[in-house]
Amino acid sequence: MDLTSLQTQARALDAADALSPLRELFDLPPDVVYLDGNSLGPLPRSARRAVTHALEQEWGQGLIRSWGRAGWLQRAAEVGDRLAPLLGVGPGEVMVADSTSLNLYKVLAVAMELADLEGVAVERMATERMAFGQPSDPPGGASEERAGVRPRRVLLTEADNFPTDRYLAQRLCAERGWELRICAPQADGRFDASQLAAPEVAVLMLTQVHYRTGALHDMQAINRQASAHGVLTVWDLAHSAGALPVALRHPGAECDFAVGCGYKYLNGGPGAPAFVWVHPRHVERAEQPLRGWLGHARPFDFAADYAPAPGIARYVCGTPPILSLTALQAGVETLRAADALGGMSALRAKSLSLTDFFRRACAVLVPPGSLECITPLDAAHRGSQLSFAVRPPRSAARIMATLIERGVIGDHRPGDASVPDILRFGFAPLYNTHADALRAAECLGAVLRTG
Amino acid sequence: MDLTSLQTQARALDAADALSPLRELFDLPPDVVYLDGNSLGPLPRSARRAVTHALEQEWGQGLIRSWGRAGWLQRAAEVGDRLAPLLGVGPGEVMVADSTSLNLYKVLAVAMELADLEGVAVERMATERMAFGQPSDPPGGASEERAGVRPRRVLLTEADNFPTDRYLAQRLCAERGWELRICAPQADGRFDASQLAAPEVAVLMLTQVHYRTGALHDMQAINRQASAHGVLTVWDLAHSAGALPVALRHPGAECDFAVGCGYKYLNGGPGAPAFVWVHPRHVERAEQPLRGWLGHARPFDFAADYAPAPGIARYVCGTPPILSLTALQAGVETLRAADALGGMSALRAKSLSLTDFFRRACAVLVPPGSLECITPLDAAHRGSQLSFAVRPPRSAARIMATLIERGVIGDHRPGDASVPDILRFGFAPLYNTHADALRAAECLGAVLRTG
Repeated sequence: MDLTSLQTQARALDAADALSPLRELFDLPPDVVYLDGNSLGPLPRSARRAVTHALEQEWGQGLIRSWGRAGWLQRAAEVGDRLAPLLGVGPGEVMVADSTSLNLYKVLAVAMELADLEGVAVERMATERMAFGQPSDPPGGASEERAGVRPRRVLLTEADNFPTDRYLAQRLCAERGWELRICAPQADGRFDASQLAAPEVAVLMLTQVHYRTGALHDMQAINRQASAHGVLTVWDLAHSAGALPVALRHPGAECDFAVGCGYKYLNGGPGAPAFVWVHPRHVERAEQPLRGWLGHARPFDFAADYAPAPGIARYVCGTPPILSLTALQAGVETLRAADALGGMSALRAKSLSLTDFFRRACAVLVPPGSLECITPLDAAHRGSQLSFAVRPPRSAARIMATLIERGVIGDHRPGDASVPDILRFGFAPLYNTHADALRAAECLGAVLRTG
Repeated sequence: MDLTSLQTQARALDAADALSPLRELFDLPPDVVYLDGNSLGPLPRSARRAVTHALEQEWGQGLIRSWGRAGWLQRAAEVGDRLAPLLGVGPGEVMVADSTSLNLYKVLAVAMELADLEGVAVERMATERMAFGQPSDPPGGASEERAGVRPRRVLLTEADNFPTDRYLAQRLCAERGWELRICAPQADGRFDASQLAAPEVAVLMLTQVHYRTGALHDMQAINRQASAHGVLTVWDLAHSAGALPVALRHPGAECDFAVGCGYKYLNGGPGAPAFVWVHPRHVERAEQPLRGWLGHARPFDFAADYAPAPGIARYVCGTPPILSLTALQAGVETLRAADALGGMSALRAKSLSLTDFFRRACAVLVPPGSLECITPLDAAHRGSQLSFAVRPPRSAARIMATLIERGVIGDHRPGDASVPDILRFGFAPLYNTHADALRAAECLGAVLRTG
């Protein structure tokens, strides 16, 4: 295998790509290979039109009337409805609001509250049984496990989860007298599901695709095990929504809560609002703590007391940033444009082809031993990025700065005592090509040979 | 006084208005009198340019590089610094972030935490004094009052404060075992400061200008009394920032915490991010609870543990919505454009002239007894709006709908058992004229005569 043969392959793969017309949805700078859509998706041409319209017509001419006339009030829910099929859920289940961090705060607080409510109910049941002289379930039975000796107040997550997620969980656990348990992965790097069997574990918080390594969790298998142990699941979809088919309601393996980011694979623009989903069986069982007037059942009554809106609308807090929300609306439509071409399954197939081809090209073009790919080889266990560990004296920051100077934009993330610095290359099947992957691999090889 | 004489007055007042060129900063629809800038400020022409640049150049061409190159990372703090003089504070003290609701949640949580810390310290001191056989302070002295018989865990606010503020306070009080005490106004409608003397009151939350009535609190007098009783103050500036000079650090009468809205008098666009200010003497004494990666001391280290950023930067949570933030930046600059023309003092003088003139015009043009102005007459006690109570069988909603059809845009707010429906007319001295006020009064009179 040499460069010429890689070039032939890239051309053949791109020529056979039914999704290739979708690249035209974006305004990409010429001469740039953009492999950082996992950090900030590019500008959809339609976002330019939509935001200009929102600025000049809706805000400029419509003024306050646009909350009604232009549909500003419904926009967050409408974008949620258009996003819903990408997450495998139905209309009315997803709301766009605030940031991923804030949405995670809301759903973690609710998951913990539901777990506490359930704990109280189970304890009361056990107490009543004892009061009536009834025997408790046989030892080791599910009910005893749930009534447990100690209250069920452990929030489980994995080591090296995204910092914000851990920071929020640390704070909520400290406030509410919970334990945040951070479990190490198995020897093969995957989530150690045996941790779910501990009777004190009540809530599991995971990110579906790891932000550093690009490893993909087996969400269905984990959900099934969590459910068997009565553990509620909270999923962060930051690096999976829009990158691969997400099935929050896979039969027999449903999630309980999920949040995700609008500005990565959803192409919503810098700091676009995020989204939140709560399983319909939970959504009206509790209030999220960040009350705001727009999450009220009747916001325009300006009532003295809070009454949460029905359904997912209660996860709204304040007034949404309409300009950024309008850009996100256009971003979500770039993904829906793939519906007629096979949708998320077709996008996933292309994403895997891109990362496969990039890995093969790197194997040929990058000096042996200079980088170590830390993303799982197996397609079932990787998202839509490839990450490479960089060891001293090489520097991931310097390598990436040189790549960016040469028009290949990825990013890098610093390591620490336990993990190495990494280079990240995100592949977005809506606009990236195999030619992009080849040019990036060539450029990376050239930088590593001279650096 | 008749219409002709009012017309002459309006022309004279507008001709003498040194601020009149500032109207050209905005893209106002022709044939509209816009008196709803207290709900949504109009489009600054510069916002159109700035947002288009952020879209096409910064996002479209710069892509992820714009976090550094285009200064996205610093933008929220920079807008805060430009806003600071309008609030009477210095650079580095104000941060733009999230919504007013969310910022209020942060500062209320911190104020309550500081009050609890102080309570613990005072109790410990009292216990230690007793243990060492030292006498406590004389009865009725400040120390005994602070050590109090019951813990100092009351959050005081006024009846009919903005709903979101009350909803958030209700929730935080319930979570933390505090009492939310809602005090009735004095007979003259003003805040009853004697409530601050109750030893269990720890935090006071008020909105400087009332969203319904337009009444303006005497912030300095209230701060002085709160401070004398060791009560922390939290001010919501939604209807005052950009409408009148705010002095958060008036010597001897400083506030402790403040939040406010970006899309009303600051002209930041629909759902623009909000702002938060914390007195420098408190800002590093506690963490706000809504942790996020961008409020970390070193966000790009992606460290395992949370370390809050120094100063007000710790009040940031997730990634800011850059398009909406860019529009807000332009909005804040419309106010700074008045700096050379007398700044907020000149704007305040014009605002009072506008509301005075509107009231006089209504007295002539509106059928007697059809409306009751509920905004205080006294300039020292009103903000930048006039509100009128509407009694059945008249309907505020119907009257306002007709006014809007005729090009006079204000808004209405529903009443309940205790307060009447109202019409609101907000006057923004950056762009409203006495001619606007006269046309609105004429139109209101015509609608009331025929309705």
